[in-house]
Amino acid sequence: MSTLVNKLHLFVNAHSQEFIESLFSFLRIKSISAQNVGMEECAVFLQEFMEKCGVETRLLNLDGAFPALYGEVLNPKAKKTILIYGHYDVQPEDPLELWDSDPFDPVIREGKIFARGATDDKGNLMATLLALKTLLAVNCSLPINLKFFFEGEEEIGSPNMKAYMEEYQELLRADYTILCDRGIHESGRPQIYLGNKGITHADITIYGAKRDVHSGQAPLIPNAAWELIWLLNKLKDDRDHILVDEYENEVIQPGKEDLELMENIPFDREEYAEIYGITNVINGNSHKTHVDSLVQLLYSPTMTINGLISGYQGSGNKTVIPNRATAKLDFRFVKNMDPAQSVERVKSYLSKIYPGKIDVEFGDVRNPSKVSPNADIVKTAIAATTEIYGSEPVVWPLLDGSGPMSLFEELLGAPAIIIGLGAPFAYANTHAPNENIGVEDYLNGIKAMAYIYYLYGEE
Amino acid sequence: MSTLVNKLHLFVNAHSQEFIESLFSFLRIKSISAQNVGMEECAVFLQEFMEKCGVETRLLNLDGAFPALYGEVLNPKAKKTILIYGHYDVQPEDPLELWDSDPFDPVIREGKIFARGATDDKGNLMATLLALKTLLAVNCSLPINLKFFFEGEEEIGSPNMKAYMEEYQELLRADYTILCDRGIHESGRPQIYLGNKGITHADITIYGAKRDVHSGQAPLIPNAAWELIWLLNKLKDDRDHILVDEYENEVIQPGKEDLELMENIPFDREEYAEIYGITNVINGNSHKTHVDSLVQLLYSPTMTINGLISGYQGSGNKTVIPNRATAKLDFRFVKNMDPAQSVERVKSYLSKIYPGKIDVEFGDVRNPSKVSPNADIVKTAIAATTEIYGSEPVVWPLLDGSGPMSLFEELLGAPAIIIGLGAPFAYANTHAPNENIGVEDYLNGIKAMAYIYYLYGEE
Repeated sequence: MSTLVNKLHLFVNAHSQEFIESLFSFLRIKSISAQNVGMEECAVFLQEFMEKCGVETRLLNLDGAFPALYGEVLNPKAKKTILIYGHYDVQPEDPLELWDSDPFDPVIREGKIFARGATDDKGNLMATLLALKTLLAVNCSLPINLKFFFEGEEEIGSPNMKAYMEEYQELLRADYTILCDRGIHESGRPQIYLGNKGITHADITIYGAKRDVHSGQAPLIPNAAWELIWLLNKLKDDRDHILVDEYENEVIQPGKEDLELMENIPFDREEYAEIYGITNVINGNSHKTHVDSLVQLLYSPTMTINGLISGYQGSGNKTVIPNRATAKLDFRFVKNMDPAQSVERVKSYLSKIYPGKIDVEFGDVRNPSKVSPNADIVKTAIAATTEIYGSEPVVWPLLDGSGPMSLFEELLGAPAIIIGLGAPFAYANTHAPNENIGVEDYLNGIKAMAYIYYLYGEE
Repeated sequence: MSTLVNKLHLFVNAHSQEFIESLFSFLRIKSISAQNVGMEECAVFLQEFMEKCGVETRLLNLDGAFPALYGEVLNPKAKKTILIYGHYDVQPEDPLELWDSDPFDPVIREGKIFARGATDDKGNLMATLLALKTLLAVNCSLPINLKFFFEGEEEIGSPNMKAYMEEYQELLRADYTILCDRGIHESGRPQIYLGNKGITHADITIYGAKRDVHSGQAPLIPNAAWELIWLLNKLKDDRDHILVDEYENEVIQPGKEDLELMENIPFDREEYAEIYGITNVINGNSHKTHVDSLVQLLYSPTMTINGLISGYQGSGNKTVIPNRATAKLDFRFVKNMDPAQSVERVKSYLSKIYPGKIDVEFGDVRNPSKVSPNADIVKTAIAATTEIYGSEPVVWPLLDGSGPMSLFEELLGAPAIIIGLGAPFAYANTHAPNENIGVEDYLNGIKAMAYIYYLYGEE
C-alpha cells in the first residue's frame, strides 16, 4: 500500500466523527425539489460547506430553475481538469409511516446512516468534497484542476441541466466528468460505469372511423386497435428483431476490452430470472454464458412498448370498434447509433408501412455515451478504487439505462463516467423508506475520490 | 287492395285517437329496469290492457327477475301458432336537459309521438296487441293461435330471458316467433330481419415478469405488451383474415334467395363511408357492388378487438416493461358455424401458438339464427307489409348484430324473425333524448301485424 493511501485511511478514519456530523447537517435540511421545500436553504448550506473545503464557489441561477452550485479549485500547474457532478435535492419522504426513524433526523443503526438523501445523493456528493479536504490536508496540494457542478433538480428529471450547461459552458469545461450518483456493487466491490444508452420516447396513435362504432359493423369499419397490432408487429417481430430499415446498421459489437470487463461482472442468469419471476427467458438464450447475457443487455438497441391504450378499458364487455389506439414506446440507442437518424428511419418506415391516418410524436432525444476502458480517467478510477476498497471494481462498459451522460461530452467536452460511492442498490432503499448509506461506504467514498484526484494528476 | 286490408285501414284510422291514448297511458308509466322504477306498476297495467284486447294472461315470475307477461288467444281450429316478443321496460331518460318535453309525458309534435319508450319498445309492443283487437273487431275471428311474451329486462341485457324460456317452455312453444323491437327502414319501406349473428366475448391476458420492470432491462425481460401484439397478429392478419385453424370451415356463402333479398336492400357504400368518416375502406373493396358489401357485412365471421390495456396509460412517458397486457375481443358467428366449436378452436390454436403464461376467458355463447326466405312466416310478412305500407319491405337475410334470437328456435322450437314496426333507427333517438315514433308508423304497425295474423292463418 502506498504511503499516500495509508495516510488517506488514517486521516479519514481519524476524522470520521466530524465527516459523519457534516453529512448529518446536510441531511437535516429537507430539500425536496418536487415540493419546492428547503431548496434555497440547502443551496446556501452547500455553498458554505464547499468554501470550508477549500472550494471557490459560485451560485448559478436560471429563470424558473432551482439554483445550481459551481465550485473550482484551480492549480496553475495542473494539466488535467475533472468535473464532479452531484445533486443536493432529494425525493419526497412519503410514505412516512414506513420509516423506522425520522427521514430528516439521521441516525446510525447497525453501521448504516438512515435518512432521506443518505445515499441519493447527499452522502455521495459530500464524499467528493471531503475527499478534496482530505487530500489537501494529507498531500498539501491538488495535482489537478477540480470543478464541481451540483444541481437541485435531479429528482424532478433535471429539466434545466442542459440549459445550465449551455449557459455556463466555459466555466464547466473539463477533460472528464465523474458522476457520483450510484452505489458500490452488492458484492462489496466498487463499481464504475463507462456510459449509458441513448433514449427517446414516441406515442403512436392510429385512427379509425370518426367515432367508436358498434362491432356488428366490424366487416366494414376499420378497427384502430387491430391496425395498431399489425403496425407494431411490423416494427418488431416475435424474435425481438427490430424491422425498421437500416435501423441497426451502425450498431457495433463490444470490443475486446469491453468483453474483458464483462467477464469480471457478476451476473447469474438464473438468479436474475428468479428475481423477476421470468419463466420463459426471451430470445431462447437461457443457455448462453453470462457474458452473452450482458452483451445482450448492454449492446442491444431496444424498442419497448410502455403502454397500450385502446377502446373499452372496464370490466365486462362492450361490443365496440375502437376508433383510436395508442402505443407508448421508448427506444434506447447504443453506441454508434445516431438517435436523431434512428428517429427519422422509424418515421420513414412508418409512412412506408402505414398509409392511413396516424400520429407519431417523438420526444426529445438523448444520445448514447461511452468512454473507452483505455481512457486515463478509467484506468485511474480502476487503480484507485482497487487499492482503497481492496478489491477490483465491477466495471460496466455502459449502463442498461439512459440519462444525460452524453451532454457532458457534447456540451462541455468532458465525457462522463459514473463512480458508485453510495450504498449497493439492492439495499440502499433509494427513493423509498429507510434510505441509507453504510458508514464504511461513506468513508471509503471519501478515500477513493481523494486518491482519484491525486492519481489522475500524477499519471 | 283486399277488402280486409281496406277494413283494417278504416278501423285503425277511425280509432287512431283511442289507440294513441292507449299508448300515452303506457308511456306515462316510468318503467326503468336499470333503476328498478315502476316495474310492477307497468306490468299490472300491461296485463290489464292485454285482457282488454281479448288476451288470456298470466304473470310469470322468477326469483330475482322482473315479472314477464304471458298471453294467449287460442283457436281450436288453428293449425299454426305465432309467439310475439316485446319488452315493457325502457332506458333511463337522462340527460333530462336535452329533452324538448317531459320524457314521461308524451306529446305529439310534427306527426311524431315523443316519449321515452315511444319506439323502444312500448309503441311496437302495443301495436302487436291493438293489431289483435283490430283483427277481432274487423274479422270477428283469429285464424291462428297467438301467444305473447313480454319481458321487463331487455334494457339490462335480458339476464333471465333464457331462464323464463326454460321454465315456461311448454307454454311458450310456437311455430315461429316475431320480435317487434326495431323500426321501419329510413326510406319509409317496412323492414324485416330473418336472423342474426352469434356472439361470444373473450378477455386474453398475457403475463411477463412478476412486476413491471424498468425498461433499461428490455433485452432480458419479456414484455407482455409485445407478446400480446405478436399473439393477436397470429389470430388475424392485416388483410382481416382469421388465422385460427379450421375456423371458417363451416361458413357458407349466401344462397340465391338471400342474394336476391340483398339486391333489394338500399346500401350506398360511399354514403356509409361518409357517415362513419372512413377514409381508407378496409379489405380494398371500395369498388365492389353494394351486394358484395352486404355479403361482407352479413356473412363474415368477425373477431373484433374491443379494447387493449397494458402498462402506462397516462400522459407523458414512463420507461416501464409492462408485466401484463389484455385484449378484450368479441367474436361473431354466422350460419353454419358452431360457436362452441369455434371457441374450442380458438383455445386450441392459442395453446399452440403461445406456450407462455396466458389467461383466456370466454363469456357465454349465443348461436347464430336464421330463418329461410322461403319460410311461410317470411312470405306472409313480406306480403302483408307490402300491402299495408304500399312498398316492398327491406328484408335483411340477417342482422349484422347479435342477440337472443337463436334461443327461440333452440328452446321453443319457434325460429324468430324481426318485423320493424317502430321509427326508422336513424331518426328514432332510441336510448337517447327525444325518442319518438311517428303516428303513422305506429298505426301502420297495428295494421301490418293484424294483417299478418290473418294472412298467416289463411295460407
